[in-house]
Formats: sequence, C-alpha cells, structure tokens
Amino acid sequence: MEQTIKVKTAHHAYAVKIIPNGLSQLGIYLSKIWSKRQIAIITDENVAPIYAEQVRQQLGSAGFTAQLLVIPAGERSKSWQQLIKLIDQLAAWHFTRSDGILAVGGGVIGDLAGLAASIYLRGISIVQVPTSLLAQVDSSVGGKTAIDLTAGKNLVGTFYQPDLVLIDPTVLQTLPERLVIEGYGEVIKCAALVGSNFWQLTSKIHSVADIYKFSSELIAASVAFKAKVVTEDETETHQRQLLNLGHTLGHAVERAAAGRLFHGEAVAIGLYQICRLFEKAKLTVSPTTEQVAQRLQAVGLPLTDEALATPAFYAALTHDKKIHDGRLTLIYLEKIGQPNFYPWSLKKVIIWLKRELPTIN
Amino acid sequence: MEQTIKVKTAHHAYAVKIIPNGLSQLGIYLSKIWSKRQIAIITDENVAPIYAEQVRQQLGSAGFTAQLLVIPAGERSKSWQQLIKLIDQLAAWHFTRSDGILAVGGGVIGDLAGLAASIYLRGISIVQVPTSLLAQVDSSVGGKTAIDLTAGKNLVGTFYQPDLVLIDPTVLQTLPERLVIEGYGEVIKCAALVGSNFWQLTSKIHSVADIYKFSSELIAASVAFKAKVVTEDETETHQRQLLNLGHTLGHAVERAAAGRLFHGEAVAIGLYQICRLFEKAKLTVSPTTEQVAQRLQAVGLPLTDEALATPAFYAALTHDKKIHDGRLTLIYLEKIGQPNFYPWSLKKVIIWLKRELPTIN
Repeated sequence: MEQTIKVKTAHHAYAVKIIPNGLSQLGIYLSKIWSKRQIAIITDENVAPIYAEQVRQQLGSAGFTAQLLVIPAGERSKSWQQLIKLIDQLAAWHFTRSDGILAVGGGVIGDLAGLAASIYLRGISIVQVPTSLLAQVDSSVGGKTAIDLTAGKNLVGTFYQPDLVLIDPTVLQTLPERLVIEGYGEVIKCAALVGSNFWQLTSKIHSVADIYKFSSELIAASVAFKAKVVTEDETETHQRQLLNLGHTLGHAVERAAAGRLFHGEAVAIGLYQICRLFEKAKLTVSPTTEQVAQRLQAVGLPLTDEALATPAFYAALTHDKKIHDGRLTLIYLEKIGQPNFYPWSLKKVIIWLKRELPTIN
Repeated sequence: MEQTIKVKTAHHAYAVKIIPNGLSQLGIYLSKIWSKRQIAIITDENVAPIYAEQVRQQLGSAGFTAQLLVIPAGERSKSWQQLIKLIDQLAAWHFTRSDGILAVGGGVIGDLAGLAASIYLRGISIVQVPTSLLAQVDSSVGGKTAIDLTAGKNLVGTFYQPDLVLIDPTVLQTLPERLVIEGYGEVIKCAALVGSNFWQLTSKIHSVADIYKFSSELIAASVAFKAKVVTEDETETHQRQLLNLGHTLGHAVERAAAGRLFHGEAVAIGLYQICRLFEKAKLTVSPTTEQVAQRLQAVGLPLTDEALATPAFYAALTHDKKIHDGRLTLIYLEKIGQPNFYPWSLKKVIIWLKRELPTIN
C-alpha cells in the first residue's frame, strides 16, 4: 500500500512516498516527476552491491541516462574530500541544471549528495531514496544537508529540498539489525513528541521483529510529523527545534563516545536522560521517564553510556552549534505528546548537568 | 547623500545603501542591523593594506569583536582551498549562527565569503562592502555566491542574500583605473537594458574621470535595476536572465583569453558583438550597435578581441552552464531599453557564429 505525505516549504513542494517494493518501480516514479535527463546515482559501498544494478536498470528502462558513483561507507565520507570528488564527477559528466541526482543510501549519502546537489551550478534537482531506518524516518525529510569538519559534525551544509523522497520499507530486510534499532531511537523521539496514536503504536513494539512488522506505519507516522514541522518552519527558527528533543545530550555523548555509539543510540540516551533530569526538576510529570525507558529498552536501546558526563562530553556540549550568544534551548517533555522549550545559559546547563548527571566511569 | 535601494526575495529583505564615505561610518550602520557579535572581516591582499585597519577600528568602536582574514587577491582564490581555509577559520574562532561575516573587497571576496556564509552552520549572516566598481554595480547585489572549478567559472555556489550591502563610491579613488573601466562595462549593459534616463545618464560619460564624477548616480541606477530584477526573480528562471545580456559571448571570450581580459571588458565585447550580429539579422534596429559602440569606446572599452571565434572560444561556449538540453537563450536588444529572449539550439548558435563572427587571428 502506497502512502504519500506532502512537504511544503517557502520555495518548494514535494512528496514523501512510502512504497513497499518501491525500489523495483523506481523508474516509473521518477518518470512522473522528471523529464528525460542524466541521473547520477550516488550510493555507498554497502548499498551498491545489493541495489546499484537494480536501480541502474530501473533508470535505463525508464529512458534516463544513468551514471553511478560509489562512495566509501561511513560518517567519514561526509567530508570536503568526498564532496569535491562528487562535484568534480558531475562536472566531468557535463551535468547541467536540467540533470539530477538520485541519492540511494543512509544519512551519510543523503547529506553528502544533498549538499552537492544544492551547490553544484547553484542547485540541481535531487531525489532521495533512503535505505536505513534512520534516514527513512528522519534525515531524508526536511532538506538538511551536511558534511562534517574536524571541529564538529554537520558544521557545513544547506537547507535544500528534494523533488521526491521515495521510501521502500522492504530494504530494511538487508539492513544490519543494530542500524534498524538505532533508527527506532528517532522513531521513539518522534512518538514522544506527538503522543496520542503514534505513542500508542510504539506500545506494540516489543522486539526488533516488531519494528520490521510495523515498519510502514512507524515510518509514515514519523514522516508525517516531521513533514508537518518542516512545512511550518523550514530553517529551524522555532517549531523545528522540537525535533532536537534528546539531541543536545545525545550529540554530546555521541561525540564523546568517538564512534562507539550510533546516532540513534545516542539520541535514545539523550532522550531518556533529559526526561530523567526534568522529571527530577518537576518539569516533567511522572511516569514519563519510566514510559520512555520501557519503549527504548523493549528493543535494547541504551539509556546511558560511560561517555556520559566525561570531560569529552562537556567539551562537545560547549561546541554545540545551536548555542547562540552563550545560550541554548533544551527541549523537554511536560508529558508524552507535550514538549516544551527551556532556554538557558550554557554555563548554568553545565553546572546543572555536573551536579545531576551520573558519572558512570 | 545617502541612497537606499530595497531588495526583497522569498526568504529575505535587505537594503543596498550607497553612501559616499560610508566606510568611515561602518560601525554605525552595522549596529543598526546587527546585535553585538563576532564579525569576521574577509578581505584580500590588495584591499587589506588600505582599509583593514579602518574597518577593524569601526567594528571595535561599535562594540563588535572583529576578526580578520586576508585572502590572496585574484580569481584563483575562488577555490575549494580558500573556501575550506575560510570555513576552518570560522570554526576555529568558534563562530555561531549569531555571528557574522563582513566581506570587504571585489567580486572574488564577495563570491567566496558569500558562499562560506551560506554553508557554514547552514547559513550565518553576511554584510557585503564591495570595493570594486564591478562588485558595486553587479556582483554584490542579487545574492549569487560562487567558487570556480577546473571545469569552469562559478560552477559551485548558492543563492544567499546578505543583510546589507554598503557601497562607498569614494573607495573607487584607490581602485586601479582598468578596474573602474571594466566595471563601467556592466553599467553600460544595465543602461542598455533599462534605456530612458539611465541610458541618457551614460551619454555624459566621455572619459574615466566622468565615471568617478557620476559614480554615485551610475551605481544607484545599476543597483536599482538589478534589485528590481532580483526582487521579481531570485533564482534566474526568467526575468533574471536578462542580466545575461552580453554574457554568453562575453564569458566565452573571457575564458578563451585565459586571464588577459577582465570580466567587464569581456562583457563589453559580448554586448557589442551580440548587438552587431542581431542587427545584421534584422532583430536589432539600427543604430543600436553604433550607440553601444560609442558608449563603450568613450572610456576605452574593447569591442573585439583576438580570442573571439577561436577554438577555445567555441569550446568555452559549449560548456556554458546556462545550456539546458542542448539549448541556450541568447539575450538581445530590439533597441536600447527593449531586451528580448532568443532561445536556440547550441548547435545552431555555433554554426551561426562561425559564419558571422570575424576571426581576427
């Protein structure tokens, strides 16, 4: 069953389509939105052996001229080096503004290819085909693109919307289990923000097998929420900040763990800890933290990590790119489905965390 | 006398201010639009010795924290290398989204700093202080940013609007004369597009001294026209294409001349030649070409060059980034003040040019 969710920003309107086995009809869907053109398939070394040939055939039989560029897998590819390589390749293929990019992969591919699409010739069209659960529920929707600097993650990027996001939940079958679980961390975050039916849906998830079973519903609910937020506020001035629930502490612990934690795992930790801290401060009602913990633990997501509250954790927090004039805005839950903003000075946040966060080491 | 021209795009509204001696009041003007913050002054090796200290003092006395980065002068700085250096420097200074960039220089500095501002942290604020006539009348208004690739000029960039463009015509006194003349090439292009009073104004320019004498008026007329076009059409889908008058042949001859011609000189050649060719084809009325030639020659701008119609010229034309599906749109003048579009296939354009353009070699 095909589900379509519309996203609308100041400059651009597009659809996110959730289509089981959609990858095997990719040519048809691209033909509906794009005239005949050259298409650069950007993918990584993990995805290419499984899907590159199928995607290339889909494009060919739909009358497109397909080019293929395979990027090394992993966060390290969100680099200047890979960005330049990608753009040089587009220029070598003589890509014009009427050609397009097809990003087939997880968040790394989506972020890198999205940035390339947004700056090559001041912007060429792109379609996102996210293949990890994390990318399907989060990074492929909203138009954020990025590469990393030595100084921090996602420090260079743009807001740039694709022409279509095509999500095929069946590709999760070929995804390593730990990546499915981390993606579910972001799903829980969305469900906690939305509450109501979405939070109810997550009560059915008692194992990784349940994530597969309900993948279409979980993805659709997450995307619908994110699409609504992005439609209202593309560039993160207010409403979009809600999506950062669990991310301030999450990013810091992810950074401090130096690659040991996946992003969705770090978000799970950040989400649980911010609930625990705000519940202690009487701003989050009981038993919100307990409910969140149950949902996360049902699939084996972590609630804490030894990198939490280490010097590296605080160093990362200090360089959070959402700090403005020495202040940052923590997102917390008054209860499930009722998030709120807590703007505070960085200095006070750190004093508070040093007092309240357990040092597990 | 201060003149203000408003520019409005989908996302952003800002002012272009033309202020004789504005540089010596920079701190006041920045204070009006920006809260206290860190400001990175980006400038080049030619401009820095003359203005860097004054600008730094202006910022300091207005309560800003000024940082300074000096880039090598010249088109070669529109490179990945300088972009990465600039962005690494912003990260090293711990620039956040509430800090800002001040670009003080010609088109190279404006394009490079503009691109950096648009992608660092997905966009931080920027003020443009163009110091060449070309930048004052053209590149600083409209929000185009860019670096070059080996494959061609301006192949990587964004559309990103500044918070303010502050133009001080008195800085032209320290600009080498050839750069003043080339800037006037773009002024003539604008005047030819607008006609009426603007074209009349250029009839007063009989020498380079006259450019200085009427600089405020010439800049204001050019900026007003460009602001109008950009306000109506930020991303060059139609109306903005008019600004490309003289640029298709101009870019190609500039490229073929391999650095020997300045951009405004190449535009002068492109403008004259497109008039001549279309007048021969009876689409431009006589004596438009003659009028254009008089205006250009009054200040010593070239009408032709030995690089015109060379193999390198045709090679550059073939890689014009405005070609879509093998077609391009030539802009021509029916008469002064009345431009029109001529969409054509690249193949036919080249056959036509090979027949009609003089090979001077």
